[in-house]
Amino acid sequence: MHHRTVFYISDGTAITAETLGHSLLTQFEDLQLRQRRVPFVDTVEKAEKVVAEVAAAAAADGQAPIVFNTIVNEELSAIIHGCNGKVLDLFGIFLKPLEQALGMRHTPSKGKAHSMHDAVNYEHRIAATNYALSHDDGVRTSFSEAEVILVGVSRSGKTPTCLYMALNFGVRAANYPLTDDDLEDTRLPEFLRKYRNKLYGLTIDPERLMQIRENRRPGSKYASLAQCRFEVAAAEAMLQREKVPMINATHASIEEIASRILNDLGIQKQLF
Amino acid sequence: MHHRTVFYISDGTAITAETLGHSLLTQFEDLQLRQRRVPFVDTVEKAEKVVAEVAAAAAADGQAPIVFNTIVNEELSAIIHGCNGKVLDLFGIFLKPLEQALGMRHTPSKGKAHSMHDAVNYEHRIAATNYALSHDDGVRTSFSEAEVILVGVSRSGKTPTCLYMALNFGVRAANYPLTDDDLEDTRLPEFLRKYRNKLYGLTIDPERLMQIRENRRPGSKYASLAQCRFEVAAAEAMLQREKVPMINATHASIEEIASRILNDLGIQKQLF
Repeated sequence: MHHRTVFYISDGTAITAETLGHSLLTQFEDLQLRQRRVPFVDTVEKAEKVVAEVAAAAAADGQAPIVFNTIVNEELSAIIHGCNGKVLDLFGIFLKPLEQALGMRHTPSKGKAHSMHDAVNYEHRIAATNYALSHDDGVRTSFSEAEVILVGVSRSGKTPTCLYMALNFGVRAANYPLTDDDLEDTRLPEFLRKYRNKLYGLTIDPERLMQIRENRRPGSKYASLAQCRFEVAAAEAMLQREKVPMINATHASIEEIASRILNDLGIQKQLF
Repeated sequence: MHHRTVFYISDGTAITAETLGHSLLTQFEDLQLRQRRVPFVDTVEKAEKVVAEVAAAAAADGQAPIVFNTIVNEELSAIIHGCNGKVLDLFGIFLKPLEQALGMRHTPSKGKAHSMHDAVNYEHRIAATNYALSHDDGVRTSFSEAEVILVGVSRSGKTPTCLYMALNFGVRAANYPLTDDDLEDTRLPEFLRKYRNKLYGLTIDPERLMQIRENRRPGSKYASLAQCRFEVAAAEAMLQREKVPMINATHASIEEIASRILNDLGIQKQLF
């Protein structure tokens, strides 16, 4: 086991640094990491404080920390590069090849990636989040403004998926729970039929569904394996028959589910 | 204006590729970009289809597209590198220096960054999202399990911020709206006082608040500038007096607000 401290350092939110670092570190096995996010490093004092923290971690670990740096300001970035960790610098490594590719020089400006440089986009995602909240769990059955309508049995993961698509992609995502009443029919509930090109099914293994429901309502019929099996089988059969695309959420992350849905429905919204 | 097409290509969700690309491209001004996310490129056929799309974009733009590639598989990645765009490769550029820093070789495995390789984390963020939903807008006033409690006037942005912290960081975030009744007092509502170390204030410019409320309830007293000014001034005075840290959401993104809050409260949760 390798004991290491990893720093994610930025003059903005540090979200890019951490995303980059996580992706790269997944390619290494048996790492035992202590991770430290340090956002908003925008003064000499803060940069020097981080350098001292890196030194302390190096001493404690007996190994050089890994430092993912996305500070744009050259003076502050130089201070970070003076630390006794191994510094991997997003802008330092990528800007030159990108300048060549674009045939132009860059204009340094800090922390733009996750800042509100685009107020229209900001309002768009807040509106999408409000939409998801007010069109959750079949609360409203007019889905004419929805871009995506998730259908699935209760507790299959529809709400978090809708909220994720709204907050991170600005997508207006509604959801509708298939109830026992709906599942007695072999066809889609009638009012959903007119939205066919926006529908996406979320399914889940009955055993997993049982666990989730058991946490909510222990010992209930709702949480019984028999009921979960019946609902999942009926919902999957209905969605297959109606040719609604479907993803099994049991072994997928929210990001995978959301990306898959947007890709399959051809929705090209920008990630925030 | 530079007209360019940018591709974000991955064998996973493409979230890392897009995050990286956005950050880098913010450093260039006056770019006019058409952005195309291509996730789940995990077969030779799909890789060849992307290469054809890049060629079509190159022909349409009269300029080479920029291609951010995070495909791990070497065979598929080589196909992407054969396209006629300018390929910037996350793993190609960063893995070598990271191997040197860690003193070990990497073990290629695709799409791990946003996949469910950690089911415990997954359940944690779903639980956090359910927590945020059930502790929204002062619905429950027992906040003993909260890690963060946002306080602020109605429509200052508390709900989206809580949901973002829950979904993206797995933080249990509750929120409480300061009402007229609360604001008649100069002190914090009594039941909030015992949670003092978890409290964070969200404020907003009265003019902006008026716009938001006007969209909700046009012509109401609630949406009037006088009412917005009164509430914001009273809330800010209360929070300052009670030494509750505070951020103005008017010109900040959700990411900035969330990162600032977690940083100020010393909450070191991993970004998903």
